[in-house]
Amino acid sequence: MFKLYYYPNNASLAPHFLLHHLNADYELLLVDKQSNAQKSADYLKLNPAGRIPTLVVGEQPIFESSAICIHLCELHPQSNLMPAIGDPKRPLFYQWLAFLNNTLQAELMVRYYPHRHTNNEVTIPYIIAAQDARIAEALAIINNQLEHNQYLLGDTLTACDYFLFMLAQWSLPIARSPLTFENLAVYLKRLCDNSTIKAVCEIEEIDLAPFRNTTKDSHILAHQP
Amino acid sequence: MFKLYYYPNNASLAPHFLLHHLNADYELLLVDKQSNAQKSADYLKLNPAGRIPTLVVGEQPIFESSAICIHLCELHPQSNLMPAIGDPKRPLFYQWLAFLNNTLQAELMVRYYPHRHTNNEVTIPYIIAAQDARIAEALAIINNQLEHNQYLLGDTLTACDYFLFMLAQWSLPIARSPLTFENLAVYLKRLCDNSTIKAVCEIEEIDLAPFRNTTKDSHILAHQP
Repeated sequence: MFKLYYYPNNASLAPHFLLHHLNADYELLLVDKQSNAQKSADYLKLNPAGRIPTLVVGEQPIFESSAICIHLCELHPQSNLMPAIGDPKRPLFYQWLAFLNNTLQAELMVRYYPHRHTNNEVTIPYIIAAQDARIAEALAIINNQLEHNQYLLGDTLTACDYFLFMLAQWSLPIARSPLTFENLAVYLKRLCDNSTIKAVCEIEEIDLAPFRNTTKDSHILAHQP
Repeated sequence: MFKLYYYPNNASLAPHFLLHHLNADYELLLVDKQSNAQKSADYLKLNPAGRIPTLVVGEQPIFESSAICIHLCELHPQSNLMPAIGDPKRPLFYQWLAFLNNTLQAELMVRYYPHRHTNNEVTIPYIIAAQDARIAEALAIINNQLEHNQYLLGDTLTACDYFLFMLAQWSLPIARSPLTFENLAVYLKRLCDNSTIKAVCEIEEIDLAPFRNTTKDSHILAHQP
């Protein structure tokens, strides 16, 4: 039995996708971000970084979304959501997950919480503008990787794809939407038909319409900076 | 035979520690950051993110420092630099490595390259001040973890410790030095006697004196904000 401390459309989304995909026995526990519950004494005992998510496995709390994803994959090797040890794709799995986590996700966090990164509110618009450009650079690298690959690691869906879908969903409002990148747009549209993504987004009330209802060209017109 | 594309005291330092510790057969290839060689067409073929390091294993390039560290550990399971699958500490290894990589390292990058995160140079001092506080918060979380643990995961040295030593070395000039944190200071001083850290820091011309030559108290006086 797993317990996932989550908040809708937070970094708990990728572990939620995995738990659903794996058909695991799990319970969702809402961390009320509105009341800053992630900084409460009880939550900090589970996760000293005071962030969402935390997964409790038996008695063991684990934090960091990417670490939770890897652990769930290793507990369910038959799922093939992560290449096995010895598979030449295994280091590439770690590589892309790290890139998503320390680059695209980290840049998005600065973009959406710029006030945490400056002591002067007047500077915020300059930070947002710079971050929008940096996020577009990261998306461009991912778009290139998808040029000859159906999924991030090739022809098989892995946990990296669930992680990327989470971040792509967060990226929709930036100056250059992920849907303006040709390969990424096709890929994200395809992932919208994934039964786990459909089910979990319904639970977390995440609207998939932006991925589905537009043609690639209209998005390029609508979103290019 | 491994090839590590590196630059002294860059994110290549952690993989360099591991290659040395493992007594691996490896070659160091300098990426001349001064001439921006990490953005050259040849290097971008290996590493489309244009960052240091890249490890080439046979013909396979792998980027992302944390991914390279994990891969080296998995190639050398007898080294015990990473808990084995099934060991309850394995998810904690992923957790702390992710925290170091996406939090402490990411915050340090914003601290040292603030101009990348703003479109207005006037804003830079405000960003640096905020980042110094954020880095101190991350160091405090690590300091707490070290309260009852000789190493980050307990009583055994793992790749996480080499990764943390790299980041702690980068953190020395921030407003609140890692040496002002009691447990962290003892830990870092101990790691300075690690034969791999001594040897690799000599090769990369990294001065270990700041970790060794000061008493805890003098550092607290010297560095507290």
